[in-house]
Amino acid sequence: MTDNSEKIADVSRRSLLRGSAVAAGMGVVGGASLMPISTARAASGKNEVAPGDLDEYYGFWSGGQSGELRIMGVPSMRELMRIPVFNRCSATGWGQTDESIKILTENMLPREKEFWADKGGFPSNGDTHHPHMSFTDGTYDGRYIWVNDKANTRVARIRCDIMKVDKIISVPNAASIHGLRPQRFPKTKYIFANDEHRVPLPNDGTVLDDPTKYHAVFTAIDGEKMEVAWQVIVNGNLDNVDADYQGKYAISSCYNSEEGVTLAEMTANEQDWAVVFDIAAIEAGVAAGDFKKYEGDVPVLDGRKGSKYTRYIPISNSPHGVNASPDGKYMMINGKLSPTVSVIEMAKLPDLFADKIKPRDAVVAEPELGLGPLHTAFDGRGNAYTTLFLDSQICKWNIDKAIRKFAGEEVDPIVEKLDVHYQPGHNHTSMGETSQADGKWLISLNKFSKDRYINVGPLKPENDQLIDISGNKMKLVHDGPTFAEPHDCIIVHRSIVNPSQTYDREDPMFDAIKAQAKADGVEDLDYAEDVIRDGNKVRVYMHSTAPIFSLEKFTVKQGDEVTVVVTNIDDVDDLTHGFTISNYGVAMEIGPQQTASVTFKADMPGVHWFYCQWFCHALHMEMRGRMFVEPA
Amino acid sequence: MTDNSEKIADVSRRSLLRGSAVAAGMGVVGGASLMPISTARAASGKNEVAPGDLDEYYGFWSGGQSGELRIMGVPSMRELMRIPVFNRCSATGWGQTDESIKILTENMLPREKEFWADKGGFPSNGDTHHPHMSFTDGTYDGRYIWVNDKANTRVARIRCDIMKVDKIISVPNAASIHGLRPQRFPKTKYIFANDEHRVPLPNDGTVLDDPTKYHAVFTAIDGEKMEVAWQVIVNGNLDNVDADYQGKYAISSCYNSEEGVTLAEMTANEQDWAVVFDIAAIEAGVAAGDFKKYEGDVPVLDGRKGSKYTRYIPISNSPHGVNASPDGKYMMINGKLSPTVSVIEMAKLPDLFADKIKPRDAVVAEPELGLGPLHTAFDGRGNAYTTLFLDSQICKWNIDKAIRKFAGEEVDPIVEKLDVHYQPGHNHTSMGETSQADGKWLISLNKFSKDRYINVGPLKPENDQLIDISGNKMKLVHDGPTFAEPHDCIIVHRSIVNPSQTYDREDPMFDAIKAQAKADGVEDLDYAEDVIRDGNKVRVYMHSTAPIFSLEKFTVKQGDEVTVVVTNIDDVDDLTHGFTISNYGVAMEIGPQQTASVTFKADMPGVHWFYCQWFCHALHMEMRGRMFVEPA
Repeated sequence: MTDNSEKIADVSRRSLLRGSAVAAGMGVVGGASLMPISTARAASGKNEVAPGDLDEYYGFWSGGQSGELRIMGVPSMRELMRIPVFNRCSATGWGQTDESIKILTENMLPREKEFWADKGGFPSNGDTHHPHMSFTDGTYDGRYIWVNDKANTRVARIRCDIMKVDKIISVPNAASIHGLRPQRFPKTKYIFANDEHRVPLPNDGTVLDDPTKYHAVFTAIDGEKMEVAWQVIVNGNLDNVDADYQGKYAISSCYNSEEGVTLAEMTANEQDWAVVFDIAAIEAGVAAGDFKKYEGDVPVLDGRKGSKYTRYIPISNSPHGVNASPDGKYMMINGKLSPTVSVIEMAKLPDLFADKIKPRDAVVAEPELGLGPLHTAFDGRGNAYTTLFLDSQICKWNIDKAIRKFAGEEVDPIVEKLDVHYQPGHNHTSMGETSQADGKWLISLNKFSKDRYINVGPLKPENDQLIDISGNKMKLVHDGPTFAEPHDCIIVHRSIVNPSQTYDREDPMFDAIKAQAKADGVEDLDYAEDVIRDGNKVRVYMHSTAPIFSLEKFTVKQGDEVTVVVTNIDDVDDLTHGFTISNYGVAMEIGPQQTASVTFKADMPGVHWFYCQWFCHALHMEMRGRMFVEPA
Repeated sequence: MTDNSEKIADVSRRSLLRGSAVAAGMGVVGGASLMPISTARAASGKNEVAPGDLDEYYGFWSGGQSGELRIMGVPSMRELMRIPVFNRCSATGWGQTDESIKILTENMLPREKEFWADKGGFPSNGDTHHPHMSFTDGTYDGRYIWVNDKANTRVARIRCDIMKVDKIISVPNAASIHGLRPQRFPKTKYIFANDEHRVPLPNDGTVLDDPTKYHAVFTAIDGEKMEVAWQVIVNGNLDNVDADYQGKYAISSCYNSEEGVTLAEMTANEQDWAVVFDIAAIEAGVAAGDFKKYEGDVPVLDGRKGSKYTRYIPISNSPHGVNASPDGKYMMINGKLSPTVSVIEMAKLPDLFADKIKPRDAVVAEPELGLGPLHTAFDGRGNAYTTLFLDSQICKWNIDKAIRKFAGEEVDPIVEKLDVHYQPGHNHTSMGETSQADGKWLISLNKFSKDRYINVGPLKPENDQLIDISGNKMKLVHDGPTFAEPHDCIIVHRSIVNPSQTYDREDPMFDAIKAQAKADGVEDLDYAEDVIRDGNKVRVYMHSTAPIFSLEKFTVKQGDEVTVVVTNIDDVDDLTHGFTISNYGVAMEIGPQQTASVTFKADMPGVHWFYCQWFCHALHMEMRGRMFVEPA
């Protein structure tokens, strides 16, 4: 084996930073009119799903800084549902109901609890990037979706039966969770989560402006228990991550090998890394006690360069996306500031860890594709599709040809380039991150839409474009505007996802409120119409059936802490009720067969109407009652 | 003239309430499979807007209990933008930035300020129903949109140049704002707002369970000043409202003439009203001092039955929607519990106020259309389109024929019925609420989607269906899923709406922050990179240009109140930056040429990275800096 580090492609970084950053960095954005619109008009229209027909795929879209998750229909590209995750939701009461507050706060770190104690209890924002579904044997199994919060260093889990969040955890010893992927094989145990922002360990203020003492950690979360299993300290900043199809390794892109703190420092080196984590070795290290503990009761191993837990494969400056090919053979490391994608052959990694080969010997191809390669998707037919941020293009290339070229053969791996509009980040193919990649649809999540829609003011939507990749040529068929800012998505065949139509009254999620009701002498929530006073706490139990709440009125005293518990006994699909108290800022969703509760202080005396805010019946508007608040 | 009150149609209310409320009230919802799906498959596909093409219309959709407003593209039915209004927005920082908090709180009532003082300052939810644009001479003029908050009794205004809220006011002496419409002629001066929930006046707790002392008020807001001009006490509960094309009258539907408080009481009478308000008479009453004041410095006139300010036209039990025909001649009062729409001829109203005719003499038609008529839209060709909630249909009918039939002629006004899916509430035609109704598109906002999309769990989307009405037959062309729960929308030709691409640095919205900066010695926000300490307050001024914040770091002390002011000096359309502080729950949008600020307490010591959360550049991810919080 030869050291092929000399093959690392050069980078146009300096020209990016020089002169007008905007003009250079934005690529075609400044000159959109130069691109003939007609080239984008090859719409086949075949993505349209006629009224009465159903989409073939579920799309799970991160909601970016909106903090939510979105369910899309693919190929119609219609938003079917918003799932509040880290945001507050006016409609559903997420962040206001007792149940959601418990989920948002129960796994906070002590320093967070202290910080938020006088600030409403928890943050109201999130920055979701990477939604990923649980796997069994290398393909989706429809149980859960996990998604990161870059803003507040959290990971959330969504139950796919009810499409609601059931767990959120804060990650200790980290300052930002960016890349996130579940283990693919044999079954998702770990959720791998990348810490992007380097900070002191612990970050308690004793170290401030001394970057030599900053660290980033790689985290493995037990996806079933939703607890951090272990962490590994690394060199550099962790960016994206993917897991293999063999259950042995995870690989993260890692930039800022300089360990600097300014833009100039962070991009000074021509070379950064892909960091390979040996899962079995790390587990053995944990078992052997080869770790320290900092914040929380979490084993933290040292995986910096030279560690037996990791290998650092040199990659050109600031690699970004990491994507496993669906045949399980390769991991693509996307160049970002290099025009290349580096192809790591997974079968070489045991030899790398055994030091039988050098790190760069694991790289078996490095095709030069264009400017700003960020992420790569797959069609299951041996082709890869890489987004070129600066070129505003998707580059389709053949993996086998790229390997042959790297080995010296005269062959061009590039199959086709397609303009997208504009500046694509992530992309994704139907079932493309599984062993069942079916090569039908490609999504390009473009960061700028500019002139693609009628002007809606200074804030523009993103532009999620749908491309038909079933034939030999890529066909752009739909422009999909989205609100800030889906970073990533997955596309799952509808046969895999089987949500419930109504809640299950026996769901353990209701155990706590049932126990409280029982203690209050309310034997069956389905028939509840009780007002229980407990000192200055009042618990109001009612049930709802369209168009009536079981309590037409209830009375509390000014200053009481009031908890209203509503059970929706309607057992009809799509028959969600709501509970809103006028002028009290109280509103929540109660799905069919669900119990939900909300607690507030009854500080404003008078007659306050509560009403159903989810249209439920011809007499929906009359579905209401009165809360009397007696003056103190 | 004869008293034609005997013509008031009977109502199927009792059968609705008897037996299974769900089965009866839901109409086809329980038996969706009975409807042949094939009847809904006549999609022409002509609504599709190909990649690179633009929508012809702006749709402004209320966001219902999500508290927001949405901009849709019509006919593509794509959501182009979300405008946070009464909700908190994780992405834009609405509800967190200093500027949005000012808008959300500056016009609160004293009792609200007191109530929210220890609860975060303002509610985090809203329930928007009716978005309406400003008019000049009976058609849209593209300046503003107003929308109500039913949950917390507020009205907000959106500036259509930047598509952001600039004013929110709380309405005194009211308990819920439901119906809302702007004056159409000669130019929108008043915004008419209906109080739906009857409460004591004042509602301070001295009266509680005594419904005889409850009232609802009709409110006129000065849309330019965003102040309440006057209010009128009415009998019954106010529901929807519309203004005429002559600038003389507003008409509200008014139910619960019983003035009861339970469902049974509220629907006991066979007859309720349309209440007509005489604007000039009310203005004269205000000028003459014929009013009282309760909460706030607002003249409240007595417009109960017998008042010179109002007339009560008898309409069958619980009328709902109120819609002026685009020729200005008629006002449609939709029956809800009656199968009829009552047509009021506007030209008869002067005689009604002069007591030359009886109230029912103003009704010139009352076609029986089907079960649950809620709202009516128009095509400008003499046809009306009424949603039938219980029948899950749109009924197209001819206004002239309905009038002739009412006069005794043997003619059938019903032209066609089309199934919709399912349970339609509001509907709306392109430009249909203006004198320029163009009869191209009809939207049916259906409250249940049930089986129309792949199953997303117990909470389903609504279903906004697009219907081509340009031909003789209605054609259903698109099913549009939407999140909770657009109650109403308007469709405005794109030639009328002309938003800015970037903010204007001279916009008065920046005056306050400029003044503060100047006082702090920061002469030009465009070049700011200053940290100003003022006791335990610290103001941090920076500017941003992709991919750099002008401050790479700043230092504060634990416990400081920190205000960060960011000016985005990028002058390129679609180049929005964000400012997020990791683990501090801080995030905001800064559009091109905008200044935005956020204030927080720096309680958590350590190194905290701030970063740009709106993708802006190839090196966007590196756009960040450090906040050092020195331990106390």
